[in-house]
Amino acid sequence: MNFASDNAAPIVPEILAAIERANEGFALAYGNDQWTRALERRMSEVFERDVAMFLVATGTAANALAVAHCSQPWSSVLCFAEAHLATDEAGAPEFYGGGLKLALLPGANGKLAPDTVKVALGKGRGVPHSVIPGVLSLSQSTELGTVYRTDQVRALAEVAHKGGLLVHLDGARLGNAIAALGCTPAEATWKAGVDVLSFGATKCGALEAEAVVFFDPKRAEGMPSRRKRAGQLISKQRFMAAQFDAFLHDGLWLKLARHSNAAAARLAKRLPEAGLRSVWPVEANEVFVVLPSTADARLRAAGATYGSWSSDFLPADTAAAHGDKLVRLVTSFATTDADLEKFVGIARET
Amino acid sequence: MNFASDNAAPIVPEILAAIERANEGFALAYGNDQWTRALERRMSEVFERDVAMFLVATGTAANALAVAHCSQPWSSVLCFAEAHLATDEAGAPEFYGGGLKLALLPGANGKLAPDTVKVALGKGRGVPHSVIPGVLSLSQSTELGTVYRTDQVRALAEVAHKGGLLVHLDGARLGNAIAALGCTPAEATWKAGVDVLSFGATKCGALEAEAVVFFDPKRAEGMPSRRKRAGQLISKQRFMAAQFDAFLHDGLWLKLARHSNAAAARLAKRLPEAGLRSVWPVEANEVFVVLPSTADARLRAAGATYGSWSSDFLPADTAAAHGDKLVRLVTSFATTDADLEKFVGIARET
Amino acid sequence: MNFASDNAAPIVPEILAAIERANEGFALAYGNDQWTRALERRMSEVFERDVAMFLVATGTAANALAVAHCSQPWSSVLCFAEAHLATDEAGAPEFYGGGLKLALLPGANGKLAPDTVKVALGKGRGVPHSVIPGVLSLSQSTELGTVYRTDQVRALAEVAHKGGLLVHLDGARLGNAIAALGCTPAEATWKAGVDVLSFGATKCGALEAEAVVFFDPKRAEGMPSRRKRAGQLISKQRFMAAQFDAFLHDGLWLKLARHSNAAAARLAKRLPEAGLRSVWPVEANEVFVVLPSTADARLRAAGATYGSWSSDFLPADTAAAHGDKLVRLVTSFATTDADLEKFVGIARET
Amino acid sequence: MNFASDNAAPIVPEILAAIERANEGFALAYGNDQWTRALERRMSEVFERDVAMFLVATGTAANALAVAHCSQPWSSVLCFAEAHLATDEAGAPEFYGGGLKLALLPGANGKLAPDTVKVALGKGRGVPHSVIPGVLSLSQSTELGTVYRTDQVRALAEVAHKGGLLVHLDGARLGNAIAALGCTPAEATWKAGVDVLSFGATKCGALEAEAVVFFDPKRAEGMPSRRKRAGQLISKQRFMAAQFDAFLHDGLWLKLARHSNAAAARLAKRLPEAGLRSVWPVEANEVFVVLPSTADARLRAAGATYGSWSSDFLPADTAAAHGDKLVRLVTSFATTDADLEKFVGIARET
Repeated sequence: MNFASDNAAPIVPEILAAIERANEGFALAYGNDQWTRALERRMSEVFERDVAMFLVATGTAANALAVAHCSQPWSSVLCFAEAHLATDEAGAPEFYGGGLKLALLPGANGKLAPDTVKVALGKGRGVPHSVIPGVLSLSQSTELGTVYRTDQVRALAEVAHKGGLLVHLDGARLGNAIAALGCTPAEATWKAGVDVLSFGATKCGALEAEAVVFFDPKRAEGMPSRRKRAGQLISKQRFMAAQFDAFLHDGLWLKLARHSNAAAARLAKRLPEAGLRSVWPVEANEVFVVLPSTADARLRAAGATYGSWSSDFLPADTAAAHGDKLVRLVTSFATTDADLEKFVGIARET
Repeated sequence: MNFASDNAAPIVPEILAAIERANEGFALAYGNDQWTRALERRMSEVFERDVAMFLVATGTAANALAVAHCSQPWSSVLCFAEAHLATDEAGAPEFYGGGLKLALLPGANGKLAPDTVKVALGKGRGVPHSVIPGVLSLSQSTELGTVYRTDQVRALAEVAHKGGLLVHLDGARLGNAIAALGCTPAEATWKAGVDVLSFGATKCGALEAEAVVFFDPKRAEGMPSRRKRAGQLISKQRFMAAQFDAFLHDGLWLKLARHSNAAAARLAKRLPEAGLRSVWPVEANEVFVVLPSTADARLRAAGATYGSWSSDFLPADTAAAHGDKLVRLVTSFATTDADLEKFVGIARET
Repeated sequence: MNFASDNAAPIVPEILAAIERANEGFALAYGNDQWTRALERRMSEVFERDVAMFLVATGTAANALAVAHCSQPWSSVLCFAEAHLATDEAGAPEFYGGGLKLALLPGANGKLAPDTVKVALGKGRGVPHSVIPGVLSLSQSTELGTVYRTDQVRALAEVAHKGGLLVHLDGARLGNAIAALGCTPAEATWKAGVDVLSFGATKCGALEAEAVVFFDPKRAEGMPSRRKRAGQLISKQRFMAAQFDAFLHDGLWLKLARHSNAAAARLAKRLPEAGLRSVWPVEANEVFVVLPSTADARLRAAGATYGSWSSDFLPADTAAAHGDKLVRLVTSFATTDADLEKFVGIARET
Repeated sequence: MNFASDNAAPIVPEILAAIERANEGFALAYGNDQWTRALERRMSEVFERDVAMFLVATGTAANALAVAHCSQPWSSVLCFAEAHLATDEAGAPEFYGGGLKLALLPGANGKLAPDTVKVALGKGRGVPHSVIPGVLSLSQSTELGTVYRTDQVRALAEVAHKGGLLVHLDGARLGNAIAALGCTPAEATWKAGVDVLSFGATKCGALEAEAVVFFDPKRAEGMPSRRKRAGQLISKQRFMAAQFDAFLHDGLWLKLARHSNAAAARLAKRLPEAGLRSVWPVEANEVFVVLPSTADARLRAAGATYGSWSSDFLPADTAAAHGDKLVRLVTSFATTDADLEKFVGIARET
């Protein structure tokens, strides 16, 4: 019953096999290898256009490098107040961005609304006293397990572009969103106005494979140096490229995402059996639920793992009794029906 | 009718005279001069204890150096959401602090409450995912023209210290607060728990004189290097030291503050003649008022200068009609009764 | 004939097997797993004392995090002018260290002498005008393929410690040095005065496994946050811990190092057959040689890979004819006798 | 006998008078005042073209802001090894530049040669491993009291521009150089290829007035924010603008420079009377001399102030006996013949 995060899951067999296959003879380091070249071609196919791609070690690095590269130290990055960027990266965007600022915006169901962005763009005393909005960062799927529709992304991107901002997408779980939307990767990203993407394979089944993807390769100028000095240019990059390539090969990533999405949906559907319900719409692979302390204790005792979550954005109609806890349950490609069964069963006991 | 800011006022004659007196022969640069030594003694007298003092060029630099020095790059600085630090310094704290984060807190009348700080300290996913609260920064007088009572500062400092934070005071208008409180500088600062102070003389009558004051000189270790590499070690420092010394001499600073406070009080008192009222309690030298667009137009036409203000913290009972504008009126040592008279007169016309 | 770098070699079978073994079920991310705990115990055994260990993605990150953590932004890091830190990391130490400075020192055979460090410590106009020496960084084995004797490290560390500096060791090839010295890991590091170590397994056979090791765990305070915000906290860390553990298990790392050292020695020994000689003593797994342009052309045509090197520190007695090129040949655990044979053979042709 | 530095001199009467004249009524802060506008016009006249000008508090800030603005964090700034930027600013360029690197180059008489720059441009392993040369920074007059001829600046700028670098001039003593050269300010700067200038008035007679001047105003984009967040946007800027304007008015700055240059020349000419000689050509207002310890002791006892200097670039033919000290003597607008007389007299005694 591991629902702590999808990065607690192991490596998908197909991806491990790709590492093993790449372990053949010598290959120049730092991305000067055939696996990296192959992945570059694959990415361009997947996104139906030439892209500039930079592999990095972590999702935090991908986000921080992406927003830093698209802004100035005196920029602000507009994002949902509970964006991973804002709450879980220990200030990486500020560090990489030379001291940029995050502007934390509210959002129902973890999604920003165009009007919220418009209002944010109108704030401030003006230059040089205020920082200058530089990037709009969205997460897809969102931190609250919901998914922006492509027209919603497009509407947000329009507001951003009109205001002179670039649009960044934190796609640590992009596959889950695309699986949910049933659209193409191109439609989910640049066709909807996304300029730069943090594309994650780790949470979805890789050992370690993250990428920053610029949909306009010209925007990537200087990025090789930025990545290197951040200690993010992987030495034996062939093994990371091989992972990502296997991840994208033959739609594996979407197959994995469909599995975890379906598991989350089943879990959400069965929660009422235990008198529980998901707080936000379950559209990807995360389920949020307010857990009574007794159920929480039983589940923990039975070895279930999951994390608690900030209740700042809990909807007004979600009454939480004293001692209740908002928790997050994340499913993965490795989640089994037995896990769900067991979780609901223990939560239900009385 | 200049109410734009107190830094639009000229230099107080006593301070200009001090510059002229210091302009005598050679003196070693970078603070190795007798005027700096004299000011150090003066500061220690004024605050009734040994302090470590660092002159710098601007209040922004003083704030940024102070909070940077009391934190780590992975720290957060807790402050009122409209603190000067947060909204008017273009990200200087983030730049000087190596990418630290500001945590923006709400506060009635521009003042933080201990419970707000407590709640903020309890947030976050924990280390290493979240930044670590490192500094509580208060402004005195506040950005909304109010003044913390010394017991209020003490209560906030207790919460902060208990949580392992240091307490910074943005004292760009410290004189105004002390004049209002009628306490000693020691009572207003370190006796109430303040660890480090941005002490400003510029807004209150100097040409340019700002200081970072550490009440525990041991905390200042490394500060000479930090200041120098920030380009904030003034070359001919004797002239800045002479200004600050004259400012503190014989209570000049408090005399000036009493003048500007009294002017603000008189202005606030007379606003009802024009059908207006101050939005927040007028406790120092700033008056905030919601101005109908017609009055605004008349005043601008008559050459009045003042700035508009964010209405984010406008009290719920302050109805602002469409087109109304929240504006800030700042008085200074140079504000005359005639200015007030004229302002109210023009605002009143109908 | 791949002599470009040891990071062009594949993954050692024992290490790949460890990854496969770790790919079993769920494990909490970010180092909260049993493999990381096991590695921590292993490291303490290997170094014969409690250490604080932080896994990171690259050697560049390890170096940059280590020196940043042991210094202030106004520090200087003393190092050999051709240290990897100085010439190959695109400014990572400066970035991570908030703008610290590297002081580039000369050194015969790539090794610093205590007197050179002493002279460097005596330079500068003093605080606050000059930066303050904060760290002495040594590489072991060095960038020129030589190895400091332990008494040489100790003598350097004494000068550094006396001057208030900490001692960092870039151990990207620490195994090669220890294999050459025949001493224990403890003798090679903290017993010789090393305070913090960049410990690399990648160049020596891992897929990707690098660590910062503090020999005094108290010095590591704040490091979890520093690593996280640098995007260097690996998500599925169990796989990196498993690699490093296999690397250290049963002396594998030293066995691998002995292989590559022996290959380099054999190569150096046979160079005279081709009228060539190694420029610096071959003490680890790198051989530097001045290659006539004709031999260079033949080797390149035959598919040999190797890099050219700066001739700044070429000994005076090493005459380099016009067109000659100083090149670096790196051997690895995967270098075969056939590779050496072929290289010398082609170089010899006339 | 104050020869410590020209910033030990007082304020020139004409400049103090300008401060007094500007102290009239209210004026908007932060440069929104008529004095700043007037200075902008004056600067454009002096340089015979439209320029973008930014006043800042110190020469260190001017240098750091200028090179940071003309580079990337992964850039290197090429400069003479004893440039003020490199040795006297505690790492300000690295701090402001987000961790950029200085490349320290040798130079006879404190002046870089085009070939030295060419060689430097050819170094390095290449992107992304090496930083990228971004700025060539020259000092005029130089730190060793010499002056680049305009054709020398032009030749250096050509090499720099061809390599894709911008050219920065540290003009803390630009007046001294121009007075020596007898050329126009335009000829000394942009006509010779200078892109950005640190223009100092403080060392030459102001209380505090420094500027960053971009000869192509388009290059200044973003600079208002960069300056503000550095705490370098002066609040009551009218007083700094008034100083600089008085400094430039009617050639005052060149008159002052001619005085200090002449004093240095006279001092150099008379040194042989004391058995001394200037180490480098005395072309501006600095004289370097190797002082026997006995003369040094006598001069110190008599109250002379001057600083010692690094002997790294002492010409080979300048024998320095044990105990001898290389010292720097700086003259200013306030240096009198009596000072020179007295210095030479005491140095001569035996």
